[in-house]
Amino acid sequence: MKAKVVFHLDWDSKDSLIMALNNIENLLKDIPADEAAIYLVANGVAVKLFQREHAFEYASRIQNLSGTGVHFFVCNNSLNKLGIRHEELLEPCQVVPAGIMEIIRLQSEGCAYVKP
Amino acid sequence: MKAKVVFHLDWDSKDSLIMALNNIENLLKDIPADEAAIYLVANGVAVKLFQREHAFEYASRIQNLSGTGVHFFVCNNSLNKLGIRHEELLEPCQVVPAGIMEIIRLQSEGCAYVKP
Amino acid sequence: MKAKVVFHLDWDSKDSLIMALNNIENLLKDIPADEAAIYLVANGVAVKLFQREHAFEYASRIQNLSGTGVHFFVCNNSLNKLGIRHEELLEPCQVVPAGIMEIIRLQSEGCAYVKP
Repeated sequence: MKAKVVFHLDWDSKDSLIMALNNIENLLKDIPADEAAIYLVANGVAVKLFQREHAFEYASRIQNLSGTGVHFFVCNNSLNKLGIRHEELLEPCQVVPAGIMEIIRLQSEGCAYVKP
Repeated sequence: MKAKVVFHLDWDSKDSLIMALNNIENLLKDIPADEAAIYLVANGVAVKLFQREHAFEYASRIQNLSGTGVHFFVCNNSLNKLGIRHEELLEPCQVVPAGIMEIIRLQSEGCAYVKP
Repeated sequence: MKAKVVFHLDWDSKDSLIMALNNIENLLKDIPADEAAIYLVANGVAVKLFQREHAFEYASRIQNLSGTGVHFFVCNNSLNKLGIRHEELLEPCQVVPAGIMEIIRLQSEGCAYVKP
C-alpha cells in the first residue's frame, strides 16, 4: 500500500506542528519514502509557523523531511492577509494559491486527511 | 474539478467558525459557485454558534454564503441535548437528524473533510 | 448505506474523547451495529486517556461500545515514547504498531474521518 496523506495545520500552534512532524517521521520509519506521498498544508495563522524567524527549533526537521520528498505547502491567501513575504519562509516551503483548495484536491486524489 | 467539501465544527469556538467562513469565502473567489458543493456541519456544542442571539457578528456572512449555495447543517441530536429550539437558529440553517451521520455520508459521496 | 468511520484522537483531552463516545453512541442509535464499521484511533498523548487509571469515568462506555463491535486502536509508537505498558490499558484496546498508518489505511478502505 502506498501511504498518501495530507496533514492540515491552520492554527498558530507549535504543538500541532511538532505533532505533525513526529507523525511524519514515524511514518517514514515504517515505509520507504518512495512508497509515500506526504503533504503538509498550512493555511490561516498556521503559516506563521513557517517563517524562518519562528522556526529555529524545528527548521532542520522540516529540511530533512523535505529532502526525503515530503511537501510543505503554505497558503498564499493567508500570507497576503498577514502581510508575510515569501522570502520570510523556510526554504523547503512551496507557496500554493489557496491551501484549502489544495487539501480538497489532495483528498480527491486519494490522500487521507489528518488534523493534528 | 468540482470542489466538494464538508467543514466540521463541534466545539463552541467562534474562532473556528470564523476560520471556516474565511475558508469558504476564499474558495468561492477561486471557483464559480456552480462548480462547488460546500457543506458546513455543526454538531456537539458548536450548534450554539448558530443561535441567532450568539451570531450577530457573522450572521450576514452565513446569509450571503447560503445565498450562493453553501449548506449549513445543524445536528438535531445536539440541539435536543442542549434544549435549543429550531426557531432559535439562523434562518439559513437546515436541521439534520444526526450531524456525524451526515459527515460520513458526505465523505462517502466524495466530499473532502476539513476541520478548522 | 454502511457507516464506515474512523475517529481520531491525538491530544490528552478528555473532552474530545467524551465527544467521540457521544458521537459513536448516537451513531449506533441510528444504525444497526452490523451495518457500521466504527474505529477510534488514539496516538500521541491521547493514548494516556486509555490507561485504566485515568479512565474510570468512561471505562464502562468503552467496554459497552467494544461489545457492539467498535474498535479502539492505540498507537504503539506513542506508548513506547511515553513509557506506557500494554497492561496499563483498558481491556478493549487493541495496540497497533502505528496509529497514523492505521488512519491512512482505514481512509483508503473507505472510512470517513472525524476529528472531535
